[in-house]
Amino acid sequence: MLATHRSDLSLFSAISPVDEAIRAAAYRRLDVLTKPRGALGRLEPLAAQLCAIQKTLGVQIVRPVGIVFAADHGVADRGVSAYPREVTAQMVANFLHGGAAISVLAKLQGIDLWIVDAGVDGDCSDHPRLIEAKIRRGTRNFIDEPAMTPEECTGALRWGRDVVERVMHGGSNTLILGEMGIGNTAAAAMLMHGLTGRELIECVGRGTGLDDNGLERKRQLLAQALKRRAAPQVPLELLAEFGGYEIAMLTGAVLAGAARQALILVDGFTVTVAAALAAQLNSNVLDYCVFGHCSEEHAHRALLEYLQVQPLLDLGMRLGEGSGAALALSLVQAAVALFAEMATFEGAGVSNKDD
Amino acid sequence: MLATHRSDLSLFSAISPVDEAIRAAAYRRLDVLTKPRGALGRLEPLAAQLCAIQKTLGVQIVRPVGIVFAADHGVADRGVSAYPREVTAQMVANFLHGGAAISVLAKLQGIDLWIVDAGVDGDCSDHPRLIEAKIRRGTRNFIDEPAMTPEECTGALRWGRDVVERVMHGGSNTLILGEMGIGNTAAAAMLMHGLTGRELIECVGRGTGLDDNGLERKRQLLAQALKRRAAPQVPLELLAEFGGYEIAMLTGAVLAGAARQALILVDGFTVTVAAALAAQLNSNVLDYCVFGHCSEEHAHRALLEYLQVQPLLDLGMRLGEGSGAALALSLVQAAVALFAEMATFEGAGVSNKDD
Repeated sequence: MLATHRSDLSLFSAISPVDEAIRAAAYRRLDVLTKPRGALGRLEPLAAQLCAIQKTLGVQIVRPVGIVFAADHGVADRGVSAYPREVTAQMVANFLHGGAAISVLAKLQGIDLWIVDAGVDGDCSDHPRLIEAKIRRGTRNFIDEPAMTPEECTGALRWGRDVVERVMHGGSNTLILGEMGIGNTAAAAMLMHGLTGRELIECVGRGTGLDDNGLERKRQLLAQALKRRAAPQVPLELLAEFGGYEIAMLTGAVLAGAARQALILVDGFTVTVAAALAAQLNSNVLDYCVFGHCSEEHAHRALLEYLQVQPLLDLGMRLGEGSGAALALSLVQAAVALFAEMATFEGAGVSNKDD
Repeated sequence: MLATHRSDLSLFSAISPVDEAIRAAAYRRLDVLTKPRGALGRLEPLAAQLCAIQKTLGVQIVRPVGIVFAADHGVADRGVSAYPREVTAQMVANFLHGGAAISVLAKLQGIDLWIVDAGVDGDCSDHPRLIEAKIRRGTRNFIDEPAMTPEECTGALRWGRDVVERVMHGGSNTLILGEMGIGNTAAAAMLMHGLTGRELIECVGRGTGLDDNGLERKRQLLAQALKRRAAPQVPLELLAEFGGYEIAMLTGAVLAGAARQALILVDGFTVTVAAALAAQLNSNVLDYCVFGHCSEEHAHRALLEYLQVQPLLDLGMRLGEGSGAALALSLVQAAVALFAEMATFEGAGVSNKDD
């Protein structure tokens, strides 16, 4: 199994580091713009990161693309979510017809939005914005058996890459990643536990809105899965054992986005887990990621801290779909505009305290 | 003096409460949109507040207007800022020529931007976007004497109102407020101390970037001013004693914006002090305010907590100019779009957990 995984990993090995010399040059430019040094706060390192990713001081956001990967989870049958499993397919239709939060935000912000059926347990009707990549009608229930086979797992990783290649073709340099899948915070919690070594209880949250009893039940079920098999230490074995098809595709998408030297806007808990997996497979990945927000899902803040990254927004959102990342795009656009268009002290004839 | 103040207060007394019935109706609508209850986090109370302000569920942002009030401060001569006083006038020119952060953000977000010379110690050259309202070439140094006369103070309040009436004329329903004034965090700190009763030391921060010695010097100078006169308990006496012309105009602008039932997007520490003053003059004011961000200026977080309000962004910005408020406008726009355009569970055929 490992050998198979290794050969597939080579698909994603070509991720170059970002350009640290350009990042330093970006900071030098930021320091001569008409503002006190550092006064734009987090927008300054953000602008410098974009320069380092794009390897130029002429940074710009070109045709931002959003992808929502959707799939079902065998574990959802055991009641780890406040919503029934059929909601995944219903929400895919809602994404496509423009009624979901991510649809509205994509329209507002000019994001080119694509929906991927990664493994929905239902038929998603044809639509020009739907990419059919169904691995299976939902994963197996990981409480009883591995969620997916190694072949399914690597197949999903490849799909993630292929979707990114397809939708970013034609010059997009910005990728917004989201997900939909009833039960997927349960899978993400198992993966976080395996990746970080944090106690399971710290990784499990209320998802779409479990009450105290529901949360306790979710924790007990997931603990039961760990009794069947302790979390594997090899990232792709972990992913196959407890993951989801959308999470595997997201992992592939993050790797492919970084390989393309795109800015990757990461959404909430589940997408952050996929980014963490991708970072284990290639340590250059995180330099391409901007974490859009800290969600209300219990473990997200701890996972962001584990990754030593700071999210842009902290608005108590817990919707997924890429909604937090899409919202954060407006801050990224602002950072780019400020960097590109602000006057320098010298150009504007403003006295600098360092003069 | 009090009598004069009272008669001027009547200019601002007609601020109706926001519509709580509409706010409740907005929450009912939010609860049937295709998302788990509350999953949009802070965007939900924000949308409901906008409905309550606009007294309709058909909420929209119409022609957002930004105003930056600029003025100089006598106290700046004593070295309470990292920058020399002439920077105020230089930055006014930079605002008007498009090179400042607020200029860039206003252009990016379609904000109709106006600059007001409230009391700059220098000549601001004619420009169609400059409103000439100079009370005096900077306030007096409040370490030695009152910063302004009562007449100057009420005159500045009226100017704030008149500017709002002028620039919002023609149907704007959204007001973004910013300021520029070397030394004005010193004035704002004195006002916060007077308004909240917090120890002076808790109210004083680094402004545009004082080092430790500069911060200590600023604290000692402000403590000296309090020895000359303890902070008056009457808001307008406090404002005249230690305030600035831009802060007084901002106070008038907040009151006038609320009287017009506009959404008021508040920027950083200095504008929040003006909003706090306005709220003391009319307690309905805060319901019209959205606090765009928490700035890095030391006392801003404590002041927001004192007002029991939560800022939208927390990005370590400390620039003023309305930059944090302008950045937050994109979140307000998103909240409006989500509220107006998302599908309902019933409309989209999505199963709700409460069904």
